Amino acid sequence: MPFTHIVTFKWTDENFEDGPVADALQAVVATVDGVQSYVCGPDIGLAPGSYDFAVVGTFDDRDSFTTYRDHPEHQRIINEMITPHLDARTVVQLES
Amino acid sequence: MPFTHIVTFKWTDENFEDGPVADALQAVVATVDGVQSYVCGPDIGLAPGSYDFAVVGTFDDRDSFTTYRDHPEHQRIINEMITPHLDARTVVQLES
Repeated sequence: MPFTHIVTFKWTDENFEDGPVADALQAVVATVDGVQSYVCGPDIGLAPGSYDFAVVGTFDDRDSFTTYRDHPEHQRIINEMITPHLDARTVVQLES
Repeated sequence: MPFTHIVTFKWTDENFEDGPVADALQAVVATVDGVQSYVCGPDIGLAPGSYDFAVVGTFDDRDSFTTYRDHPEHQRIINEMITPHLDARTVVQLES
């Protein structure tokens, strides 16, 4: 069953240059099987109070998602590039 | 340019029956032109601390999104079905 992983991020510094985060995530995704779609990037600043960055990935199933989630390079990006700049994060996961 | 609208919701009562919200949103979306994809629904409860519900809609452009956002039935859903149960909400909007 397709699995959609939705994450929104708020940075401690709203001017944090998050382009390298997006590039690094896309590079990991390109190596994972079972990714149906994957978008990530910065908020465009249209909606008042918006968060700063989002990831939306749809995977063939939970196993494909788990491969992505646990990929060592993904964990490195989280630990070294995301967490140090993270003020808040929300996640929702859908199956449909 | 495609416009992706990503919203996560946390309900005041995590047992809030949000199926009717998803159905009502899908019914509005079916009447709006320029919707490339639209998924919404409840979190499956896999990730610790996850929010409760999400919407991810990709529109042909900002105008299509605005038509959806400002649709009277969408506003009614927000005011009558969502806001009374809302503890927290995040939004991120991407263009790519």
